[in-house]
Amino acid sequence: MVDRRIRQELASTKKEKPAPDQLQFGKEFTDHMFIMDYTPNEGWHDARIVPYQNISIDPSAMVFHYGQSVFEGLKAYLSPEGEAQLFRPDINLKRINNSNERMCIPKIDEEFALDAMKELVALEKDWIPEAEGTSLYIRPFIISTEPFLGVAPSHNYKFIVILSPVGAYYKEGINPVKIAVENKYVRAVTGGTGEAKTGGNYASSLKAQEEANKNGYAQVLWLDGVEKEYIEEVGSMNVFFKINGEIVTPELNGSILEGVTRSTAIRLLEHWNYPVSERRVSMQEVYQAHQDGQLEEAFGTGTAAVVSPIGQLSWGDQHMVINEGQTGEVAKALYDNVTGIQYGTVEDPFGWITKVNETSVVEQ
Amino acid sequence: MVDRRIRQELASTKKEKPAPDQLQFGKEFTDHMFIMDYTPNEGWHDARIVPYQNISIDPSAMVFHYGQSVFEGLKAYLSPEGEAQLFRPDINLKRINNSNERMCIPKIDEEFALDAMKELVALEKDWIPEAEGTSLYIRPFIISTEPFLGVAPSHNYKFIVILSPVGAYYKEGINPVKIAVENKYVRAVTGGTGEAKTGGNYASSLKAQEEANKNGYAQVLWLDGVEKEYIEEVGSMNVFFKINGEIVTPELNGSILEGVTRSTAIRLLEHWNYPVSERRVSMQEVYQAHQDGQLEEAFGTGTAAVVSPIGQLSWGDQHMVINEGQTGEVAKALYDNVTGIQYGTVEDPFGWITKVNETSVVEQ
Repeated sequence: MVDRRIRQELASTKKEKPAPDQLQFGKEFTDHMFIMDYTPNEGWHDARIVPYQNISIDPSAMVFHYGQSVFEGLKAYLSPEGEAQLFRPDINLKRINNSNERMCIPKIDEEFALDAMKELVALEKDWIPEAEGTSLYIRPFIISTEPFLGVAPSHNYKFIVILSPVGAYYKEGINPVKIAVENKYVRAVTGGTGEAKTGGNYASSLKAQEEANKNGYAQVLWLDGVEKEYIEEVGSMNVFFKINGEIVTPELNGSILEGVTRSTAIRLLEHWNYPVSERRVSMQEVYQAHQDGQLEEAFGTGTAAVVSPIGQLSWGDQHMVINEGQTGEVAKALYDNVTGIQYGTVEDPFGWITKVNETSVVEQ
Repeated sequence: MVDRRIRQELASTKKEKPAPDQLQFGKEFTDHMFIMDYTPNEGWHDARIVPYQNISIDPSAMVFHYGQSVFEGLKAYLSPEGEAQLFRPDINLKRINNSNERMCIPKIDEEFALDAMKELVALEKDWIPEAEGTSLYIRPFIISTEPFLGVAPSHNYKFIVILSPVGAYYKEGINPVKIAVENKYVRAVTGGTGEAKTGGNYASSLKAQEEANKNGYAQVLWLDGVEKEYIEEVGSMNVFFKINGEIVTPELNGSILEGVTRSTAIRLLEHWNYPVSERRVSMQEVYQAHQDGQLEEAFGTGTAAVVSPIGQLSWGDQHMVINEGQTGEVAKALYDNVTGIQYGTVEDPFGWITKVNETSVVEQ
């Protein structure tokens, strides 16, 4: 039986909110945060909303040394009626528990965590920006806090939720980017942690990203770690190709993150009667399709950008311009409809929206 | 020009030191720690020795989310003359900079960091336990501290050194262990971060370790992530085999950590005129050698255990007992000589020992 009470300690002073046109991503945080602690005896306990503040942590805390951590990312949107709403938060919470399983972290109660996020967002509702394309980014994460230098799962953890008002990803309209196929570095491999949303996957991606940026590319396209042939992800997004009318995305193979926007895109595309295929896609196949004039679109999907069209894909000396460097119609339709559902301007036939002020069914 | 001054703020009260027979690994820490900070404008600065204490850190600090961190591990030993001494600390500091390079973390000044470690150990000399096999474990580490949720290298870091008195690894004499060959999970892959000492590598190893423990094994033997055929490491140690008189250890291929004890063992074995080969070693080769009666020894090497003999190696249904489950003569000779040099009871012809009280040559 989970203790479902959430203690509230409100901030005595409120921060100044950033100007709508000054919003960045993930640099400013709201007045409050949610925390709960884990110990083997008490399980997850002491759920509380407190003023946003530094945490005090032993320098030997395991997260600093052995990287045992997981996180999620989702957003709260303001509907035309001024209601705060979340998009498929249940999928994020299911995924954090999948990540927990892989990283030997004790699972959280998904329903309770959803209530906690809703309560926190409701309290911080004034922080949800109103301008088009803006939102309140929600970052739930778990860190291992036991003060111990042994390589073993931690006995203690903190689950924390912080909120950050974020600007529109596309300030001047959706904009295709240049991507480099990564041939040297590998993000993840079968048997590794690629399908878990854990810090190490992102730390290992920094070097390739840095080198790609230096060479004028926005992101890298990751290939599989075994054959360096099959496509996995683009940057920290899932990737889709439209080849001769068929929409293709790499299948979930254990080294790819199961993106919420990925599953949303697949569902919408099927709803629109596009042929969608989750399967292995080799770089050679994509290259050949481009040679044959059949590579019609390529785009990434993720929470931050929703859809990020790929205008050019460089594979060694081959520089493939896709759809004349313009946003394709599939990418555009997905972007418009996903954001429309998220902001409540497009009908949601799938039940993807959770209003923040609706209480969920919770046993007391 | 690096500012080499180290500010000292001493603890007003001292902790009680643990009883010599109660020493564990990495659970108790000394009275002081070393810290310095990094910002793009100031570089590494504000080097200081302060009372051991919690650090106060923003919940959005990048280390909690994207795992950008590195660490090292080495020990201070008490010589028969009562002098504190370090074993090859220069190798650890060179390696932390190699890890920094891979993880996009700004490099530290190795000579200055060595001076800092020596000053800290000298201050905490009373914490070096005296009983046989005990030592003072030194943990330098770097964490990314910028409060920002974007996936990019952090602009801010902390370099911290903490010290922990540790008991003898082998309380009842060196003792062979049972190891399971890991066929499902992968620690690292070519193009990944396997040769960097970064948190994510250890986080990704926890699940396999947990399952091996449940099945009665002390550790897993990691195979390569591409072919699942070639041997990489054992637990968090490097691994050696003696096959028909030849000492074989996996070559440094980018996914294996370059262990200090590994390089020490190779140097000593060559000094003793053993044939030593750094090359690819397949599990099939080891199995065949065992079938042919030529697998004479197997052992891991690492800072904590120095040498950990493998008494049984299980590969699926094949349970190979090695050297009748006893410690082999090569493992024993390495253990005796490496620990002898570390504690100053065996001559050090290689210049591996650094006395803590000798000042290094430092430009002022």
